[in-house]
Amino acid sequence: MNKIEHIGIAVKDMEFSCSLYERLLGATCYKKEEVVSEGVNTAFFKTGVNKIELLTATTTDSPIAKFLEKKGEGIHHIAFDVDDIVAEMARLKAEGFVLLNEEPKFGADNKLVCFVHPKGTNGVLVELCQELKS
Amino acid sequence: MNKIEHIGIAVKDMEFSCSLYERLLGATCYKKEEVVSEGVNTAFFKTGVNKIELLTATTTDSPIAKFLEKKGEGIHHIAFDVDDIVAEMARLKAEGFVLLNEEPKFGADNKLVCFVHPKGTNGVLVELCQELKS
Repeated sequence: MNKIEHIGIAVKDMEFSCSLYERLLGATCYKKEEVVSEGVNTAFFKTGVNKIELLTATTTDSPIAKFLEKKGEGIHHIAFDVDDIVAEMARLKAEGFVLLNEEPKFGADNKLVCFVHPKGTNGVLVELCQELKS
Repeated sequence: MNKIEHIGIAVKDMEFSCSLYERLLGATCYKKEEVVSEGVNTAFFKTGVNKIELLTATTTDSPIAKFLEKKGEGIHHIAFDVDDIVAEMARLKAEGFVLLNEEPKFGADNKLVCFVHPKGTNGVLVELCQELKS
């Protein structure tokens, strides 16, 4: 795996949290995007070569709605940049990790993504993401 | 703030988790270090320009022992690289953030560090760290 692509943070109030993270990071939100298939709204900030992604739920059965209900606001996942998501998924399966999606799917910010089950990674939800050529 | 310097992950069994993260990241642990003042053992992995830090408690009153008891294993903090920790601490205080230490203190991996109270950052424990010149 390459660098950390982004850290996903689950928040309840996007407007409030965008303002908060602008002050915390000293950086302006550069992109807001809804991912309908995941039931989330996202907002992105750059911190050097990495990104912070704020996430709010748009539906009651969104994974973010469930996370907020169970654990409250906080860090939701770590995403690692990979060159070849299909190869990396195969490598992790061979190592015994459990993938939450068997095929790469489309995520926010022009990416193919796959999640690794947190039960096999000390409770950490890990995302692989490969940037799509535009 | 600059790039994400590292992500801290609280784990119960360092030996088991080191082996797990070596397989997950496809990277070898390059440093293990005890921070006596914090009651933690640490292990570091490189992922591109970023790092993953595994943390176990060495004392029952260690912040990591309390975190594991309350929340279980998982992501403990995000650390951001800063050029001038004193200036960044002053900037955050002026923005209304609450610092957990009023003076920079020595952390693992040759750093000066300061933590920001998670109540003001959507439940996220944020660390500032400035690399010491060696």
